[in-house]
Amino acid sequence: MTVGRFFEDFNIGEKITHATPRTITEGDAAFYIALYGSRFPQYSAHQPAQLLGLEKMPIDPMLVFHVAFGKTVPDVSLNAVANLGYADVRFITPVYAGDTLFVESEVIGLKENSSGKTGIVYVHSTARNQSNRIAVSWKRWVMVHKRDISRATGHNTVPELPSQLEASELPVPSHFKASRDWHRYSGSKKYAADYKVGEIISHGGGITIGDSDHMLATRLYQNNARVHFDGAHMAGKRLVYGGHIMSLCQAMSFNGLENALWIAGFNGGTHANPSYANDTIYSASVVLDNQHLPGNINALRIVTFGSKKELAGCDLDDLADLSLAQKLPEHIVLRWDYWVLMA
Amino acid sequence: MTVGRFFEDFNIGEKITHATPRTITEGDAAFYIALYGSRFPQYSAHQPAQLLGLEKMPIDPMLVFHVAFGKTVPDVSLNAVANLGYADVRFITPVYAGDTLFVESEVIGLKENSSGKTGIVYVHSTARNQSNRIAVSWKRWVMVHKRDISRATGHNTVPELPSQLEASELPVPSHFKASRDWHRYSGSKKYAADYKVGEIISHGGGITIGDSDHMLATRLYQNNARVHFDGAHMAGKRLVYGGHIMSLCQAMSFNGLENALWIAGFNGGTHANPSYANDTIYSASVVLDNQHLPGNINALRIVTFGSKKELAGCDLDDLADLSLAQKLPEHIVLRWDYWVLMA
Amino acid sequence: MTVGRFFEDFNIGEKITHATPRTITEGDAAFYIALYGSRFPQYSAHQPAQLLGLEKMPIDPMLVFHVAFGKTVPDVSLNAVANLGYADVRFITPVYAGDTLFVESEVIGLKENSSGKTGIVYVHSTARNQSNRIAVSWKRWVMVHKRDISRATGHNTVPELPSQLEASELPVPSHFKASRDWHRYSGSKKYAADYKVGEIISHGGGITIGDSDHMLATRLYQNNARVHFDGAHMAGKRLVYGGHIMSLCQAMSFNGLENALWIAGFNGGTHANPSYANDTIYSASVVLDNQHLPGNINALRIVTFGSKKELAGCDLDDLADLSLAQKLPEHIVLRWDYWVLMA
Repeated sequence: MTVGRFFEDFNIGEKITHATPRTITEGDAAFYIALYGSRFPQYSAHQPAQLLGLEKMPIDPMLVFHVAFGKTVPDVSLNAVANLGYADVRFITPVYAGDTLFVESEVIGLKENSSGKTGIVYVHSTARNQSNRIAVSWKRWVMVHKRDISRATGHNTVPELPSQLEASELPVPSHFKASRDWHRYSGSKKYAADYKVGEIISHGGGITIGDSDHMLATRLYQNNARVHFDGAHMAGKRLVYGGHIMSLCQAMSFNGLENALWIAGFNGGTHANPSYANDTIYSASVVLDNQHLPGNINALRIVTFGSKKELAGCDLDDLADLSLAQKLPEHIVLRWDYWVLMA
Repeated sequence: MTVGRFFEDFNIGEKITHATPRTITEGDAAFYIALYGSRFPQYSAHQPAQLLGLEKMPIDPMLVFHVAFGKTVPDVSLNAVANLGYADVRFITPVYAGDTLFVESEVIGLKENSSGKTGIVYVHSTARNQSNRIAVSWKRWVMVHKRDISRATGHNTVPELPSQLEASELPVPSHFKASRDWHRYSGSKKYAADYKVGEIISHGGGITIGDSDHMLATRLYQNNARVHFDGAHMAGKRLVYGGHIMSLCQAMSFNGLENALWIAGFNGGTHANPSYANDTIYSASVVLDNQHLPGNINALRIVTFGSKKELAGCDLDDLADLSLAQKLPEHIVLRWDYWVLMA
Repeated sequence: MTVGRFFEDFNIGEKITHATPRTITEGDAAFYIALYGSRFPQYSAHQPAQLLGLEKMPIDPMLVFHVAFGKTVPDVSLNAVANLGYADVRFITPVYAGDTLFVESEVIGLKENSSGKTGIVYVHSTARNQSNRIAVSWKRWVMVHKRDISRATGHNTVPELPSQLEASELPVPSHFKASRDWHRYSGSKKYAADYKVGEIISHGGGITIGDSDHMLATRLYQNNARVHFDGAHMAGKRLVYGGHIMSLCQAMSFNGLENALWIAGFNGGTHANPSYANDTIYSASVVLDNQHLPGNINALRIVTFGSKKELAGCDLDDLADLSLAQKLPEHIVLRWDYWVLMA
């Protein structure tokens, strides 16, 4: 299994059961707080979570995502040239300490590149808990090396991928209540009605990354892609796992999005430029949409950016235009488009 | 909430409920051991804690303190120029894995500085558990920027702060027993009667700090002060959270204070000089007082120093004089005056 | 206790009860995954462990070993010049989150070196759980400084140490089943019958070590040997705890030894050369033996190497010869000879 799969090793419709199911514990949850410093109350204490109708504090959905994603790496992306994108990411059933994740992927698309050297693999991955309920499902596509560049595979199947989740199709956890008393836990009275579409929110001071930080994170997720760990192989510059940047930005986003209660799904995510140790990451968000859901719940569509330089002045103003732009400037390392639930 | 409060935003008597209550778990406790390497048996295993009359191993009071302190940072000290001091710190009810801390602060003093640019804010902070019992309470004062230096506030209220806790007023946990069988867990038979007032104890080899260590710690405590995280902002030198040094010194102090059973309170604490990554911290303590409490419990007043150079010879001998001195030499980064219970 | 024991402080037959019993929790288990990224299913989730007949996921035996070993350091090896070796290491009763380890050592040999400056101390150490069952026992020998080099001790007792454990004497956990369905958790169908004696297995990409990583690990194990922590004392080069390298290699060995179910014991271990921060560690293993045990369990004798350079070509081929060689090349930092159980 050391070498991973090449493009030729995938077949449309194939289902891959990924190795190493994972019981997530309070130990993982504490470690996650230490990695990012997130201050969202619902992942920090039982009582706020219970105000939302949850049984106790859930595992942060981003920790669930990283662990589930990590399981797919040995089978899907060990030979990846690049992770090209995510779509249709849905957080369906909250995960609690003690739950076990079992992850599988279905190959939903294969397209050989015109160079003949690589191909794009599209997978639909699903993480289920021990009761067979879906915790999170997602689609992603990666560029993978071919084993034999002299033989064309003829693969040319590109699945239809939604450019966004509609607010009406967002999963809402069972018994979920969007409480208007949330400010006593979050410290902010800015609720959904106070956010304007187009509003730009700076999330404040940056966080400098160290190699130990991102490697501890990526190992916690049991993601074994060599580029993150082998400094000799990478000429001294280990690549930071893109999800690490997402979680850093999510944690910083508490400054300005204090009342975000639950990440319901991602519309997409782009790791626009690589990050390395000693980069300082700043974050800011744009409110792209603001919708009512049944049960007095609101859904805000947020695009959160991670940047290697502090976002102020023009750089901050530009984010509205960059929310849906094709090309992103060099200092932007992450553009992440997702829905949060809010009262 | 990004910008934090300025001096003008505080009012005498105001009570601030801090955001993000925190359930402390076995995950936090394990992480704390990894950060400092503390070998005190009562925080390492259930059986020693039960010999003390506790139900199981408590969370290290210093971890409780850091988490509780971290909650106050966004409201109290995000715009702090300096943390000036602590007084009257009392550890009242032990915290166990699964307990949740809720933290609030009352503004007990406000004094504008003569420069007109800053003022001193005095707060009395209290962390309660889910049963509304006080886990720890403390007073601290910080120098905070004014928003508008052109307008005087007229604030000139300085609260009375005790220079020390009397032994007779130290909180002792319910059912606490100071066992004389403790040496079978601690490895040392040096009990309270064997410590002389004025005795100086070197705690041995030092520990070198890395940026990842102190940032992981400070994030675990959900303390979001920018100076600890943003290397670009700090010209590459992220400031180590002062409490990180306290915990390093506490862990080292097991060499020589093996039978310290419980930190009952602090008389005061001074972060005399800043610490940065690559500093190696050494520690030594002076016994300032030794008192009998009811129930065959003794209380030792200890002043523990953290130093950037190894403490030997004159530097060690000088500590007795420095225990209560106004001015501290440059290599001293911490002077911490507290009471421990011992058999 | 700061100074540790010198050679003269040990007596044949003496039993040392080590300080600080340790309750191992899910927090420790999560931290261990973050340190090494191990993907063995039996330590990652409850369900695979139950397929093996265990009650729930056990603590990784190597974490148990490091914690137990760490307890012996203050009493045995604080003044060690060198850790010379291990023998007869047996993992007898699995440890689960919530169990407490109590560790003691018996001095089984003392031999003064001809120089008169140092001596070799042989200990038999045992870690028991709260029910007095042996979790792990081991023998090791260390070279220790004498206090007084002018006086000969006359010690010349060398215990008989087995060069290996026989397959027939390997401890197998109660109710242990070596399942042939394991591949649905491990992702590999290569079972014991598929391994040939003499086979060499490369474990793939390397992992670069940072000072924060190894110090966090060594503190988690409450191992307080100064050489790992005090950068000033070590002229900037803190020595990596040898057990850290073992665990890195164990984690990497999942690539190729996916179906290893349990480490039953070590035959020996050699930390052939020191490791420091920024070293990248690669790993490969040689299959030395392959035996049937009762109950459809197989035992593979594995020699795992840790190397500072990538092992390919001749360097990889040479490992078979190096498995039992006296002298090891400079790039080899670890040679570790142990038995794993497999279906």
